[in-house]
Amino acid sequence: MKKYDEPIERLIEYFRSLPGVGYKTAQRYAYSIIEGDKERAKNFANALIEAKEKIGFCEECGNYTEKKVCDICSTRNKKIVCVVKEPKDVLAMEKVKNYDGVYHVLFGTLSPLENRGPNDIRVKELLQRVQKDDVEEVIMATNPDVEGDATALYIAKLLKPLGVKVTRLAQGVAMGSDLEYADEVTLSKALEARRDI
Amino acid sequence: MKKYDEPIERLIEYFRSLPGVGYKTAQRYAYSIIEGDKERAKNFANALIEAKEKIGFCEECGNYTEKKVCDICSTRNKKIVCVVKEPKDVLAMEKVKNYDGVYHVLFGTLSPLENRGPNDIRVKELLQRVQKDDVEEVIMATNPDVEGDATALYIAKLLKPLGVKVTRLAQGVAMGSDLEYADEVTLSKALEARRDI
Repeated sequence: MKKYDEPIERLIEYFRSLPGVGYKTAQRYAYSIIEGDKERAKNFANALIEAKEKIGFCEECGNYTEKKVCDICSTRNKKIVCVVKEPKDVLAMEKVKNYDGVYHVLFGTLSPLENRGPNDIRVKELLQRVQKDDVEEVIMATNPDVEGDATALYIAKLLKPLGVKVTRLAQGVAMGSDLEYADEVTLSKALEARRDI
Repeated sequence: MKKYDEPIERLIEYFRSLPGVGYKTAQRYAYSIIEGDKERAKNFANALIEAKEKIGFCEECGNYTEKKVCDICSTRNKKIVCVVKEPKDVLAMEKVKNYDGVYHVLFGTLSPLENRGPNDIRVKELLQRVQKDDVEEVIMATNPDVEGDATALYIAKLLKPLGVKVTRLAQGVAMGSDLEYADEVTLSKALEARRDI
């Protein structure tokens, strides 16, 4: 005997397909839909379909957008490009209010282990962009981990011959953190890059 | 400037309306939809609408079902009724394979603090059912907490004059648990209800 009637079971299955959602959580989500009002379920369903149908990739930076070229690319300074791994990193960087440049989303990092080479991420598009827009500085903002570092170095090597300045986000101890809990790699990087005060 | 284009923002908002989902999680869910294929988004949307449209309450036990009377009520022994707080408790009890009786979902417990009295939960329906189906035993399986106990006692008092046997799930230390971590109320209940071996 199945646990639930078909429509509930199916909804639970779809919620389970979301990242990090187990059966119990999916069940709670499904109940919340069944207990909520009809309008909400309908609008939720529309939002799902619309997001999938209307959202594509920005022709310039590759980020998700409903337009051909996203708001950031069409209004900001194209001479400075901040390279990130994923769309959500754009949002993280946007918290820095005074950054006025544009972004370039790689959709991944180089990873020999996972068999991801330069052709699997948007490196070619970056090179084209740098030449087309006469970019002055490329800020490598891939994650401060092994893959992120390797990707940053690899791209820097490709870009330098084009005469563009390539920088990397500084690595060190995070503001408001506790030295006691900082790992040794972070501390060693912070020490190495110490500055006069 | 808004963070995302409208369709993404809206989808994130709907995911956020699910219980326990914050902005970051909703964002991850939304990306998973945008990155997934079209078919999935469409089916997910349909599952939402169908669950809401097709699922109603069982006329007998009150549990969610797409029929008038749910599978459990229409196939099992109606002389034994297990009373639970919520639909998900039915599922929990169903893990006990040899229970052959039916259920009654209260949709809540008595709670003076939250202003929930007997008329706010399905007590009346239970009394009617007990008389109509000539029920022999009512098992109170509300949660083993203050509200669950109070509700069980209250309902037991109403049922006893009808000549029906009313029982309560045994309270004690959980199987596989560690005495060291059992709270004192549980231990005191377990001691009180100790049995010969």
